[in-house]
Amino acid sequence: MIYCRFRFDGAEFSGTVEGDEVVAPGCRKRLGDVRLLAPCLPSKIVCVGRNYAEHAAELGNALPPDPLLFFKPPSAVIGPGDDIVYPVQSKHVEFEGELGVVIGRRCRRVARTEALDYVLGYTVVNDVTARDLQRSDVQWARAKGFDTFAPIGPYIVSGLEWRGRRIRTSLNGVVRQDASTASMIFDVPSLIEYASAAFTLEPGDVIATGTPSGVGPMVGGDIVSVEIEGIGALTNQVVT
Amino acid sequence: MIYCRFRFDGAEFSGTVEGDEVVAPGCRKRLGDVRLLAPCLPSKIVCVGRNYAEHAAELGNALPPDPLLFFKPPSAVIGPGDDIVYPVQSKHVEFEGELGVVIGRRCRRVARTEALDYVLGYTVVNDVTARDLQRSDVQWARAKGFDTFAPIGPYIVSGLEWRGRRIRTSLNGVVRQDASTASMIFDVPSLIEYASAAFTLEPGDVIATGTPSGVGPMVGGDIVSVEIEGIGALTNQVVT
Repeated sequence: MIYCRFRFDGAEFSGTVEGDEVVAPGCRKRLGDVRLLAPCLPSKIVCVGRNYAEHAAELGNALPPDPLLFFKPPSAVIGPGDDIVYPVQSKHVEFEGELGVVIGRRCRRVARTEALDYVLGYTVVNDVTARDLQRSDVQWARAKGFDTFAPIGPYIVSGLEWRGRRIRTSLNGVVRQDASTASMIFDVPSLIEYASAAFTLEPGDVIATGTPSGVGPMVGGDIVSVEIEGIGALTNQVVT
Repeated sequence: MIYCRFRFDGAEFSGTVEGDEVVAPGCRKRLGDVRLLAPCLPSKIVCVGRNYAEHAAELGNALPPDPLLFFKPPSAVIGPGDDIVYPVQSKHVEFEGELGVVIGRRCRRVARTEALDYVLGYTVVNDVTARDLQRSDVQWARAKGFDTFAPIGPYIVSGLEWRGRRIRTSLNGVVRQDASTASMIFDVPSLIEYASAAFTLEPGDVIATGTPSGVGPMVGGDIVSVEIEGIGALTNQVVT
């Protein structure tokens, strides 16, 4: 199943994608005639830092002994096609393409062996980061949490095998990140186990599973696109 | 006005306090006959670290040049009288009594001179912290974000002068923190300006303004109570 949210004629719908149509109760439209929104409304976004060895190395960081968790706030969420707004506080904003895990059922203290039972599906996340503020602020709340710094979408795909998906991020059409989700240090079931041991996970919550190597800066006018095999491409423009 | 949320006969109400009664549409009850809940349902809790000089010093930290922001997730919120659950991952959980600012109207990029126009009122927050994990984890998401680590309440009081409030935290009846909100490094209008320059603040969102000196560990069975003059006392038991 492919889940989406969309806007048509001023109203917002939660529905599914069937071929080139979106379907919601009382509404069936051609995909090209609606505006896709972020496919879920997370109460929290649990992000994972340094979960690909080559990315940790490119920023000069050691591998963490346990998953390195931080939050993005719901106010940061935007959908496919929405603008990433460059904040005046930063001079160095980077893209970070990531696989997003969307929770389907409330859970806490889930064992990794049962973790996938609580997953609705998978989506694409761009963990937009003000790298200069990430280095100067003690905590990453601002650097990772600015309005528009959590693009999510275009869809949530259920029944997908998360492992071994190709993830590619392009900046203005040039591929900058190209990796397989198989090279995560802490895999999806382990991340759900670890996060849910601390926080109750709610339906619609997103775990952003970390970015592979190749991150880099963006400037106003840039088009950034994160594509994951079997899910789709999440494309946004940077505006100043 | 004194705002509250409460449960009666299995239903939850948003109302106000009048004398020794709680009042909601279609419901007027004696305070003693209802169960008070956290007085708001924040979409995010923006917390401020090291905002009292003596507290920064007691943990060996320098004063930050700008407000040090981090998030607690909505899943951490509990109300007055609810249990703080000691997580198995930590061996050292501490209380941190704080003044909470509750946002009343959506806002972003608010100037400090107009910041108080967006405040619904003030409440009490206990920024419960797993101090050992705060030191060992790179980011504070787990250490500050465990389920039950954000007690809020008992009320939201509007029309209060936030400055110069006495804030006292007692552990098992012994006063451990005793300070005035006047000694914050970054005051309430400055915190709203700084936070809203990064994140859109939504109605019900809470800014926890930092804790004064005197923080200390809690163990199972302890009763912790944070009292702010003019708001009330937020009391919770620690359970293991």
